[in-house]
Amino acid sequence: MLIVKKFGGTSVANKERIFHVAERCIQDYKNGDDVVVVLSAMGKYTDELIDMAHDINERPSKREMDMLLTIGEQMSVALMAMAMEKLSIPAVSLNAFQVSMHTTSAHSNARLKRIDTERIRRELENRKIVIVTGFQGVNKYDDFTTLGRGGSDTTAVALAAALHADACEIYTDVDGIYTADPRLVPNAKKLTEITYDEMLDLATLGAGVLHNRSVEMAKKYGVPLVVRSSLNDSEGTVVKEEVSVERMLISGVALDTDAVRIAVIGLKDVPGMAFRLFDILAKKNINVDVILQSIGRNGTKDISFTVADTVLDEAVALLEANQNRLGYKELHADRNIAKLSIVGAGMMSNPGVAAKMFESLYNENVNINMISTSEIRVTVLINEKDGVRAMNAVHDAFNLAD
Amino acid sequence: MLIVKKFGGTSVANKERIFHVAERCIQDYKNGDDVVVVLSAMGKYTDELIDMAHDINERPSKREMDMLLTIGEQMSVALMAMAMEKLSIPAVSLNAFQVSMHTTSAHSNARLKRIDTERIRRELENRKIVIVTGFQGVNKYDDFTTLGRGGSDTTAVALAAALHADACEIYTDVDGIYTADPRLVPNAKKLTEITYDEMLDLATLGAGVLHNRSVEMAKKYGVPLVVRSSLNDSEGTVVKEEVSVERMLISGVALDTDAVRIAVIGLKDVPGMAFRLFDILAKKNINVDVILQSIGRNGTKDISFTVADTVLDEAVALLEANQNRLGYKELHADRNIAKLSIVGAGMMSNPGVAAKMFESLYNENVNINMISTSEIRVTVLINEKDGVRAMNAVHDAFNLAD
Repeated sequence: MLIVKKFGGTSVANKERIFHVAERCIQDYKNGDDVVVVLSAMGKYTDELIDMAHDINERPSKREMDMLLTIGEQMSVALMAMAMEKLSIPAVSLNAFQVSMHTTSAHSNARLKRIDTERIRRELENRKIVIVTGFQGVNKYDDFTTLGRGGSDTTAVALAAALHADACEIYTDVDGIYTADPRLVPNAKKLTEITYDEMLDLATLGAGVLHNRSVEMAKKYGVPLVVRSSLNDSEGTVVKEEVSVERMLISGVALDTDAVRIAVIGLKDVPGMAFRLFDILAKKNINVDVILQSIGRNGTKDISFTVADTVLDEAVALLEANQNRLGYKELHADRNIAKLSIVGAGMMSNPGVAAKMFESLYNENVNINMISTSEIRVTVLINEKDGVRAMNAVHDAFNLAD
Repeated sequence: MLIVKKFGGTSVANKERIFHVAERCIQDYKNGDDVVVVLSAMGKYTDELIDMAHDINERPSKREMDMLLTIGEQMSVALMAMAMEKLSIPAVSLNAFQVSMHTTSAHSNARLKRIDTERIRRELENRKIVIVTGFQGVNKYDDFTTLGRGGSDTTAVALAAALHADACEIYTDVDGIYTADPRLVPNAKKLTEITYDEMLDLATLGAGVLHNRSVEMAKKYGVPLVVRSSLNDSEGTVVKEEVSVERMLISGVALDTDAVRIAVIGLKDVPGMAFRLFDILAKKNINVDVILQSIGRNGTKDISFTVADTVLDEAVALLEANQNRLGYKELHADRNIAKLSIVGAGMMSNPGVAAKMFESLYNENVNINMISTSEIRVTVLINEKDGVRAMNAVHDAFNLAD
């Protein structure tokens, strides 16, 4: 069996944890499995590197930032290989150049395009544990790129797909996917299975367990994912195309407090305005999430949308620079918002799910600012201060408790 | 003009120094020169990485150690590029993969074989300052290698040779080559010029300013070197094939206290024994320096030699493992020794130089353990405690004072 195992920064934050991970991988190796390990940078090291960069230059080029950040994972994989050697198991660490982890050109937010598996296969044939840097790639100019936060999950899934692995295990500090974040909703329940689509909506909407691109890729290539804890041996949650158990109406409730809302007020009401607006953002790789367009006064319209907190300043600066071109009147940014979502493949065949969610929020006196829905998801924008209370109310309303 | 400038770890140890180096490079850039900068890891970062590795595994494989150590220079070059960007100068950092810095396979002690200059030339044509990781390379297996301590000097010289640079400036924390280490010999004098050969012997023998391989390479390719201070604008010392000034008898006195002596006692006195002994060490890339062979008692012989302190344990372990094959009786290691050398192209045509050195040591009551000479050098092994006193005595005897 060929297993790809991915461990996040917390799991390799210090010597003891590195050896703990090494021993877990060695168990599979000793069972005769081929083991590929994908690692993130240790603990908060990526943040430390970012601070180091910002101390030198508040706005470094993304190209140089990627050059700096990629050393984080290289440190992890080298130390992990040394830990395995210490335990008398042959291991080899590889970075994005050595694996030929080809990505698009976009620095800080690149997408994987192609992985050459030759080197990895050769090392596995020599019965080595292969330890690969997550999060990083190389673009066509031979420059380091990074896949964005959480990109190590994507690396793991892409490797599992390219190597036709039998399993892709994502180890985190939680022991699976819950109906809601257990830190915020004390009676949340662990799911044994969840579909790619549900997971995709949960990840996108801030469940914070898996990187959304990794789930997209797993779905595309049919890679079965297992989300489990690096701290204990409990079974975890399997993410796959279809789940076998009888489905509940919804699978989970997710809260995202990292989103901020930008409101563009008084745009001219002519065709193509939305395209122009979002094209400006897209060209700078700024991901826009929930979008709401409403008719304003005097032949104008308003467009509101959410972006991640981290790109707010860049987005606002871009839009301000293009005020003449877009011809809007005002720009507002609101950091005090939260996105609350329910997700469930079951809701496709059950009308009234959204209404039930709105009712529970009404009962809790929570005001809804914006609404967005998909086939298996309902998202509302609410005030950040109402977030946890609203989440628990919705979780209770759908009887998701353990 | 194309200038290669190399700065060591001390010169980039913190933010202020990084900007100081950036500004120095930008001066040349603004004069219209093409500038290639080679950097070492910041301050003591390489040592920190080594400690980190040893905390995990006291004897990590050299392959993984190189994988870990190469992140040090990548950090330096990325931060330097950001500093230059901050000063509004276009810059690009490149690691060994991006430059295609091809080396031999030997980890931790690799030799440069070939540099592809295409990428660097393209960046220079785009009027960027190109910042290259020193010390590191890539071998034919696509693995990171390192060139050994001080290898960044070699990187700089190799780049200067490959790019046919007009100058190769090595910036250090001293402002040139002195007749002796000014910290140990207070009246030492700065040399304006020195030959490659003299520098080679000084470097080999512990003057500690330039890495010996870098000087060998500079000599081979006729790269004119300038050794100067990163802290001030003083002229420095030029290292070249022939010096124009009238020569003193000797150029300098060097003391090396990092050497240790290994004595192999009671080897069988048969042909090939020395070969066997040193072949065992050579195969593990352990450099042996001064060698002395003497006839022992009862048809046996003794061989003494010096190695660097850092490889003593490995050398002793190797020889002990081969005791049966070599058939020696005892092995002694002595850490309390120092190598004292005088160097000077002038001594070739002046007999009596060695005698003058021995006389001055005799007058200081310094005991000589071993002697080794070349055409332009005399080296003696003495007790470490006598080192500085002996060095000053010899320096005075040859009237090298400022």
